[in-house]
Amino acid sequence: MEKGITSRAEDFSQWYNDIVMRAELADYSPVKGCMVIRPYGYAIWENIQRLLDKRIKDAGHQNAYFPLFIPESFLRKEADHVEGFAPECAVVTHGGGKKLEENLYVRPTSETIMYAMYAKWIRSWRDLPMLINQWANVVRWEMRTRLFLRTTEFLWQEGHTAHATAEEAEEETLKMLGIYKEFAENVLAIPVYDGVKSDAEKFAGALRTYTIEAMMQDRKALQLGTSHSLGQNFAKAFDVKFQSKEGTLEYVWQTSWGVSTRLIGAVVMAHGDDKGLILPPRVAPIGVVIVPIFKDEASRAKVLAVAKQCKEAIGDAATVHIDDREQYTPGWKFNDWELKGVPLRMEIGPRDVEKQQVVLVRRDEGKKEIVAQSAMKGRVLELLDETQRGLFERCKKFRDDNTLDVDDLREFAAKMESPGIFARSHWCGSADCEAAVKDQTKATIRCIPFGSNEEKGKCILCGKESNRRVIFARSY
Amino acid sequence: MEKGITSRAEDFSQWYNDIVMRAELADYSPVKGCMVIRPYGYAIWENIQRLLDKRIKDAGHQNAYFPLFIPESFLRKEADHVEGFAPECAVVTHGGGKKLEENLYVRPTSETIMYAMYAKWIRSWRDLPMLINQWANVVRWEMRTRLFLRTTEFLWQEGHTAHATAEEAEEETLKMLGIYKEFAENVLAIPVYDGVKSDAEKFAGALRTYTIEAMMQDRKALQLGTSHSLGQNFAKAFDVKFQSKEGTLEYVWQTSWGVSTRLIGAVVMAHGDDKGLILPPRVAPIGVVIVPIFKDEASRAKVLAVAKQCKEAIGDAATVHIDDREQYTPGWKFNDWELKGVPLRMEIGPRDVEKQQVVLVRRDEGKKEIVAQSAMKGRVLELLDETQRGLFERCKKFRDDNTLDVDDLREFAAKMESPGIFARSHWCGSADCEAAVKDQTKATIRCIPFGSNEEKGKCILCGKESNRRVIFARSY
Repeated sequence: MEKGITSRAEDFSQWYNDIVMRAELADYSPVKGCMVIRPYGYAIWENIQRLLDKRIKDAGHQNAYFPLFIPESFLRKEADHVEGFAPECAVVTHGGGKKLEENLYVRPTSETIMYAMYAKWIRSWRDLPMLINQWANVVRWEMRTRLFLRTTEFLWQEGHTAHATAEEAEEETLKMLGIYKEFAENVLAIPVYDGVKSDAEKFAGALRTYTIEAMMQDRKALQLGTSHSLGQNFAKAFDVKFQSKEGTLEYVWQTSWGVSTRLIGAVVMAHGDDKGLILPPRVAPIGVVIVPIFKDEASRAKVLAVAKQCKEAIGDAATVHIDDREQYTPGWKFNDWELKGVPLRMEIGPRDVEKQQVVLVRRDEGKKEIVAQSAMKGRVLELLDETQRGLFERCKKFRDDNTLDVDDLREFAAKMESPGIFARSHWCGSADCEAAVKDQTKATIRCIPFGSNEEKGKCILCGKESNRRVIFARSY
Repeated sequence: MEKGITSRAEDFSQWYNDIVMRAELADYSPVKGCMVIRPYGYAIWENIQRLLDKRIKDAGHQNAYFPLFIPESFLRKEADHVEGFAPECAVVTHGGGKKLEENLYVRPTSETIMYAMYAKWIRSWRDLPMLINQWANVVRWEMRTRLFLRTTEFLWQEGHTAHATAEEAEEETLKMLGIYKEFAENVLAIPVYDGVKSDAEKFAGALRTYTIEAMMQDRKALQLGTSHSLGQNFAKAFDVKFQSKEGTLEYVWQTSWGVSTRLIGAVVMAHGDDKGLILPPRVAPIGVVIVPIFKDEASRAKVLAVAKQCKEAIGDAATVHIDDREQYTPGWKFNDWELKGVPLRMEIGPRDVEKQQVVLVRRDEGKKEIVAQSAMKGRVLELLDETQRGLFERCKKFRDDNTLDVDDLREFAAKMESPGIFARSHWCGSADCEAAVKDQTKATIRCIPFGSNEEKGKCILCGKESNRRVIFARSY
């Protein structure tokens, strides 16, 4: 099989596109900026949805669905919000063959349309907290698009909550960020830094934006999820009030938080290699692929019978696929499933049937091992667990090795350019310094990380006093 | 509790709206024609999705996702299709702050955008059949809307398949209709007539449209799902060709099929009564609600402890909710859960604790029965099964009692007007007669049913010879 995959060293960006296209995760569509998520890519999304949805519901939220369209006047009600989003919206001007009286914006995010309903539904403190999540498509016009990472339309979930107090809202914001972090690390096997965004990088309309940031293999940052403390900004714009226990009329305190199909791009860029995708077992559509090897009809029947026994023995403990396609050789199939990133391959040939054994090969390490059929199931599940953990550890080591304390702007600029780093550097807190660093090095503040110790130092740009290091990086 | 629900006899249409709003299934949104699906309604949709998605996948289909937007030129490629859909589309004329070079239509259905991709993906007979399904939102501009039944935006699934031969495509079309019928009857507990649509009622661009049609309690018909044999119409418009085994280049044969959030409206109108919703156990977000009854703190603790034991005993066999809200009386709660249509109520009071029993009340029949706690789980599951079957049987009897052979146009018109019927009547096959019947009686041909015997007769309108009866009804 001609793979035609550019190597990561040669051109990381082209490698990424090659993998996404050749593994049939997604394709370009005839609509500018919009992608098609193909069945294999969508199956990853379904796993992400199922596992994250459970976490969101376990934390007390319910799903609902709000309109795709937002009246222009609604988007204009919160000043920062409209300024941030209106320029990148798709606008419906005609419907049912007529020009509309008021233009409709295709939702870039649903704060405005949802909070107009919250104003109707929330009457008293008994209605709080209101904890709602939505799985939906959103549209933000993009000039330069990349499959999964930046597309005009994308799929996501957006949680929107309303609370009686500022403290409760803040707690919710951080709780959801924590769930995202746990999900990224335990399910996607991607370690993240969590922290707060600078004002320049926060959500349009939020008081504070919290984020989780991951390092890709080109040492650039990818923002995986954000959680916003909205304060009372939208409550005031949409008049979302409640009667308190004491009988007074108060504005609610709100939060919103989301992750998107971008997570699929993160999995590709965090784990893949020059042979193709490497999928963490917990989100892989296929956990184990069995490739039967045979030369004639007699051995074919025997090998396939053992393959089926193995699949049945594993049962629901992992998703097993038997690749019994006749038009391809085993070697071709090995390459194909490596490209598709299936975590574990099982080979079964006539000799293995005879010896009551199977051959197991981990996608990430490539080492072969021979296992007795009687011990097969246990070993398969162990290897899947080891792969899940191993991917996380490898990714974490890479990130930690490339996260450096840098105190000199020239060194900072040089390392940002090549090989790329997460720089832990001092920042005085001024937006001007932040902008100047970006201008000179293309690096932005990814977050002011949680849990970092106070430390006296000098701003990487202006040299003024600073109390903490923040994380700078170039980003997607 | 002031329910404020209009009775069905008084005004069926108002009854429907009252139920949908008061049970918090959905709400009107500030965007004309668009609704908000509230958490309780969306939980029903999630159950429908989960159970139908499994059936769709078991039948060999994979999910994928295609763009929301369709270039105007694409919609125009199939003549009947554009004529049917363009007038009801929402049109995006501006994006990213600029006027677009080509208008984009918000998908009213995805044939055109999907088949443009199929043309790229399908090369040879080895790529066939292509069996893809999509869960998505679609938009069709509606002037007169009704929650769930007819809204400008709605949620649905649309399956789109491509096959090598006409026979295979026809088989797929009928297979999916069969899955819809099984789903409607076994999951939603709604009996349906299956059959083919007349040319006047078929999908814009299809050769043939098959349908399942259900009778609501006002004796009007609701189309629950359709499956279309598209022939090669779209294949020719989008140049979807494959190399056959014989080496010739052929157009594929296609099908598409879908059901929508309208199914929630069907459940309301098929089963509900003047007290509220009645949900079939298989789609009910809550299968069993436990209402604890107590007078003081001491009995409260004992009663709640037994309630928790019962919930744990039932485990995953049914979804159990304990309503331990303190601000409401048991009577208020009974009404509330009747309004919400929970299939089974369990009451536990101090006397029940003492006697080691619980009280069970089926929502549909309202009869109380006392059951020993030791037999509770078994009886709960039996009653849920009986409810599921009972709803179907009641609904089927009502439909059968109101499906009549009618051979006289005056009788036909009178019965259509009141009380409403499904009329099995002869039709000569002419579109003019069909239109005239509609004009005179507001009844349309719902389907030419499968499995009806050939029978000589005379067209209900023109008196010409006919070989079969078809089903006429007024419809939503």
